[in-house]
Amino acid sequence: MSYLQLPEGKELDFVAIGRLCIDLNANEINRPMEETMTFTKYVGGSPANICIGMSRLGMKTGFIGKVANDQMGRFIVSYLERNGIDTTNVVTDRTGAVTGLAFTEIKSPTDCSILMYRERVADLLLETGEVLEEVVAKTKVLLISGTALAKSPSREAVFLTLDYAKKHGAKIIFDLDYRPYTWTSNEETAIYYNLAAEKCDVIIGTREEFDMMEQFEKGQRDDRTTASKWFSYQAEIVIIKHGKEGSIAYTQDGESHTASSFPAKVIKTFGAGDSYAAGFIYGLMNGWTVEKSMEFGSAAAAIVVSSHSCSDAMPTAEQVRDYMVRCNNGEIVAS
Amino acid sequence: MSYLQLPEGKELDFVAIGRLCIDLNANEINRPMEETMTFTKYVGGSPANICIGMSRLGMKTGFIGKVANDQMGRFIVSYLERNGIDTTNVVTDRTGAVTGLAFTEIKSPTDCSILMYRERVADLLLETGEVLEEVVAKTKVLLISGTALAKSPSREAVFLTLDYAKKHGAKIIFDLDYRPYTWTSNEETAIYYNLAAEKCDVIIGTREEFDMMEQFEKGQRDDRTTASKWFSYQAEIVIIKHGKEGSIAYTQDGESHTASSFPAKVIKTFGAGDSYAAGFIYGLMNGWTVEKSMEFGSAAAAIVVSSHSCSDAMPTAEQVRDYMVRCNNGEIVAS
Amino acid sequence: MSYLQLPEGKELDFVAIGRLCIDLNANEINRPMEETMTFTKYVGGSPANICIGMSRLGMKTGFIGKVANDQMGRFIVSYLERNGIDTTNVVTDRTGAVTGLAFTEIKSPTDCSILMYRERVADLLLETGEVLEEVVAKTKVLLISGTALAKSPSREAVFLTLDYAKKHGAKIIFDLDYRPYTWTSNEETAIYYNLAAEKCDVIIGTREEFDMMEQFEKGQRDDRTTASKWFSYQAEIVIIKHGKEGSIAYTQDGESHTASSFPAKVIKTFGAGDSYAAGFIYGLMNGWTVEKSMEFGSAAAAIVVSSHSCSDAMPTAEQVRDYMVRCNNGEIVAS
Amino acid sequence: MSYLQLPEGKELDFVAIGRLCIDLNANEINRPMEETMTFTKYVGGSPANICIGMSRLGMKTGFIGKVANDQMGRFIVSYLERNGIDTTNVVTDRTGAVTGLAFTEIKSPTDCSILMYRERVADLLLETGEVLEEVVAKTKVLLISGTALAKSPSREAVFLTLDYAKKHGAKIIFDLDYRPYTWTSNEETAIYYNLAAEKCDVIIGTREEFDMMEQFEKGQRDDRTTASKWFSYQAEIVIIKHGKEGSIAYTQDGESHTASSFPAKVIKTFGAGDSYAAGFIYGLMNGWTVEKSMEFGSAAAAIVVSSHSCSDAMPTAEQVRDYMVRCNNGEIVAS
Repeated sequence: MSYLQLPEGKELDFVAIGRLCIDLNANEINRPMEETMTFTKYVGGSPANICIGMSRLGMKTGFIGKVANDQMGRFIVSYLERNGIDTTNVVTDRTGAVTGLAFTEIKSPTDCSILMYRERVADLLLETGEVLEEVVAKTKVLLISGTALAKSPSREAVFLTLDYAKKHGAKIIFDLDYRPYTWTSNEETAIYYNLAAEKCDVIIGTREEFDMMEQFEKGQRDDRTTASKWFSYQAEIVIIKHGKEGSIAYTQDGESHTASSFPAKVIKTFGAGDSYAAGFIYGLMNGWTVEKSMEFGSAAAAIVVSSHSCSDAMPTAEQVRDYMVRCNNGEIVAS
Repeated sequence: MSYLQLPEGKELDFVAIGRLCIDLNANEINRPMEETMTFTKYVGGSPANICIGMSRLGMKTGFIGKVANDQMGRFIVSYLERNGIDTTNVVTDRTGAVTGLAFTEIKSPTDCSILMYRERVADLLLETGEVLEEVVAKTKVLLISGTALAKSPSREAVFLTLDYAKKHGAKIIFDLDYRPYTWTSNEETAIYYNLAAEKCDVIIGTREEFDMMEQFEKGQRDDRTTASKWFSYQAEIVIIKHGKEGSIAYTQDGESHTASSFPAKVIKTFGAGDSYAAGFIYGLMNGWTVEKSMEFGSAAAAIVVSSHSCSDAMPTAEQVRDYMVRCNNGEIVAS
Repeated sequence: MSYLQLPEGKELDFVAIGRLCIDLNANEINRPMEETMTFTKYVGGSPANICIGMSRLGMKTGFIGKVANDQMGRFIVSYLERNGIDTTNVVTDRTGAVTGLAFTEIKSPTDCSILMYRERVADLLLETGEVLEEVVAKTKVLLISGTALAKSPSREAVFLTLDYAKKHGAKIIFDLDYRPYTWTSNEETAIYYNLAAEKCDVIIGTREEFDMMEQFEKGQRDDRTTASKWFSYQAEIVIIKHGKEGSIAYTQDGESHTASSFPAKVIKTFGAGDSYAAGFIYGLMNGWTVEKSMEFGSAAAAIVVSSHSCSDAMPTAEQVRDYMVRCNNGEIVAS
Repeated sequence: MSYLQLPEGKELDFVAIGRLCIDLNANEINRPMEETMTFTKYVGGSPANICIGMSRLGMKTGFIGKVANDQMGRFIVSYLERNGIDTTNVVTDRTGAVTGLAFTEIKSPTDCSILMYRERVADLLLETGEVLEEVVAKTKVLLISGTALAKSPSREAVFLTLDYAKKHGAKIIFDLDYRPYTWTSNEETAIYYNLAAEKCDVIIGTREEFDMMEQFEKGQRDDRTTASKWFSYQAEIVIIKHGKEGSIAYTQDGESHTASSFPAKVIKTFGAGDSYAAGFIYGLMNGWTVEKSMEFGSAAAAIVVSSHSCSDAMPTAEQVRDYMVRCNNGEIVAS
């Protein structure tokens, strides 16, 4: 059964809006960053990673965002274009903003952290007047990412984009992607996350992210209650991630869905969620079952956590299928 | 026909949230403020005025707001209490914020202006954690005023209050009350006004205010189109004010309604909208027709514009009825 | 003996730089401000008061400052001009700043307080490029007031004005006038007060103000140590005020000077320091002894504390002399 | 003749205050940064580089500064310590500030630029209360760098440190090191540069930096006028750098001094000024003539511009002497 009725006659399959930044990944890993001497540069940012992932999987994609007017910004745009992503609506800042940075520290496959540079970043300066309605009009699916709600004017640009998406019939996917820095307070976060989620068709987040959104609500909270709340607005699918215990997807028909995961020789955990999202959305858009889509997302995630980068490691559909076959054959086992 | 189905069994009729400030009205009028030497102090702020108006008309009222921890703040709370308004949820700032001020200049009955002090005002510092759900739970009607959306954290406090009101079945009235100062940009204003209006049952504003909210929409705009848009969300009544040409009210049944206004010996124009709103809402809550409610609002407004203050001049129901009788008898004619 | 060698051939006697604001004095006094219903408007701000005082005493004066582009700003400029003060270098803000306000509360003659509005005030926006070197060039004496050092760009404008004054031979008087609001920290205050004081010829302040400036210094602090420190820079006279115990003036020759004060029927304490400063500087500039100048300042202060306003109550030289005579005759006794 | 009379009996030769940051130098050079994929991490910041240089030259050194509470901050402190620099007064931020970054782009030996990250950096958050008077008390020479004056509270910390240095007899060297970013305006820069320079014994800067400081002064400006101005305050030596045309040093005795430079196989221009300053100050502190000191500085600079890094390439005294010999022997010629 196909859960997401996609609009017909659209030029693009998938458009993401939000963060575009740079990952600086430690080359010398399995040690504290103090001892890392060199870093390799990649395009990063959750919606960017997902969009690159969708493009690698063969979808027609575009991006709505803002980059700094510097070497980092130009690198990002050129990388997106080389990956076949429509950058018509990637605008360049003219106010001296910088590109967000994420230095990754990999002490061990399970002990990873990020040092962020998020002050005065270009991606949060996207303005309502810079969002092109015609770009939103031509996509089947719009993906928004929570971090873009963290500050004005980016926050307002996202709300306007949601209105454009509704007007033109695009399905809206909300990847909660909550990052505490850049938000002023927990309460502020909850308010805007809720206002956005009320307008979305698919909501993907961790249990902790949904808890954050429900901080003003009293009484027992559980996954089914959470899902029901959003079905009373607009949602058709709600996915709640429980880390190592796996994810559970709820659908409006009252069903819940799970899928098993795949083994991997883990280098780091970064990028798991983004590649999972790309694989899952790809499945849904192909009309697969929720289970099959989740499985495909899990395999894509296993590939990315086995690699040094996030964006650059996003697999093609063939690579995902091949990985699944090799896992099923026992050729790949967990590290 | 009664348009607004009010919830039963509520302790309060009417609660307003938002601005509480001080008006400093020129005593020596009909001259530029440069030549005014003394000022008289009144409680001000659009939702405060409306709430005082409702209380004078005999309704059980309460207020949700924040005042400075100074003499002005204490004066405001004491004035509200003397007017029978429940101030359980009027909290006091502890960060050194000040009370907003409005110095009025009355050069002539038709040439009035306001000099505002709105930097770091206490009313915009109301936080989500300070809004008492139990106060919202016990009112039939909640009134929000646009200015409270202008800044964080007041903006988030209003959105949370809207959620509480929905949850407890209160009818929500949105007095647009757009004031350009304190807003960062026109686009920002439109985004949050729209997000709030989508959740409201009655929306009252000027044509210019609705135009501001529709700035991202293309095509011909007129009153009926505006009203229809809001009926597609939640609204039951939309009132669009056209200044001297009068107001027009649209209802979900497709009808439009107008009412004639009353003559007045005008001293100044301040407070006309607030007293109109109080009178109109009072009528609706009494189950009167839209026309009769509008007429009552007009009479209340005529009384206030004939006085030196806004809040302090708010009439009782008897005063309004008496004014209408005297107008009908020809005892009162326009200045 | 004349302590202050004034430059010859200057067109103006006295120029002050800094705060220009509005006092709103309670008309109904001897009660908390909550119960005051009306206020009277006066020009205020310590350097403004001193400058008005100097003008009333017959000196040729000018002012360097910035006012809001509103009715309050225009009132201030017009009042200065009516008092014979050269306003060539009073510039008007074009950024939407407001005029600082001081609401006075007079609970009793000895229990007075002020409610300040100092957010985004025009006076602190004076820029280096707006200070006219030719105005500084033509004065014998420049007075700076500490509050103007509280924020950029006013702080830099004052330092530039000090350079201009040095270059053109004007004597510089520093009225410490420390007001905690508007300063970010105590440490910041001390740093800039000291940098300014190093360049001044006469320094006037309370013991508490000098203590604040000496917070980074260790060891025993007393008045003589304080004075010595400033004599090692540029100072010729240092006056340290001890409230009711009177003031003590130190001179570079090692002498200290005191003078008795005058009785007054005190209404409020505001304005005492400003009128004292005006009277004292007037005496010095006339070549009087330090003692005689202090005495004249005390008499001027006694007149102002017996009146409702500060600026408007500044006496003429004849009024001061007359007051001294009446005190000496026993016609005036303390309240 | 020895120009700088150093105090006796001090434990440290040299203490610098100010910027501590990270350089991320492109590994793939002679191309735009867009095409650089990996970067190597070094300690950076002009006063840090000079201090490391002084330490390599054999001086006993210390640093006064602030680092972020993260991996970058810990790397900086550990690097300073490994270079024998006393870090007693390097404090760690606790407010979530970051470490300043400088990505270097080397398009060609003569076409180099820097991409800076300077928002909310720890080094500008050094507070007056964090400067240890005892550290200043035990050094012969204090070096301040202009960038530390760019923002509060670092600006005030520098002014307090200048007072401590004066009190304890340390000679003060001001490396102007003007960087436009982080300053609010050109006028603000000039005011604080001048206030600091008035208190310094040696001032080193480019002609453009001195021009910036003299923007409020009228009339013909030339090097000798500039030097004379500072001799009228406190300065004993003023060095004005003219890029490729070399530097000129003025001394209080009215003499001017120049020295020839050394050939180098230039990789990039970064670090030339810092290594020059270290070499020159080293010479002065050894009692060499100004000419000989300048020559030694030039040789040190030639070594650094031939290397990939700034800090890490700072030479020992022996390396500098060796380089001079090899140049004189014709073994090294310009690239």
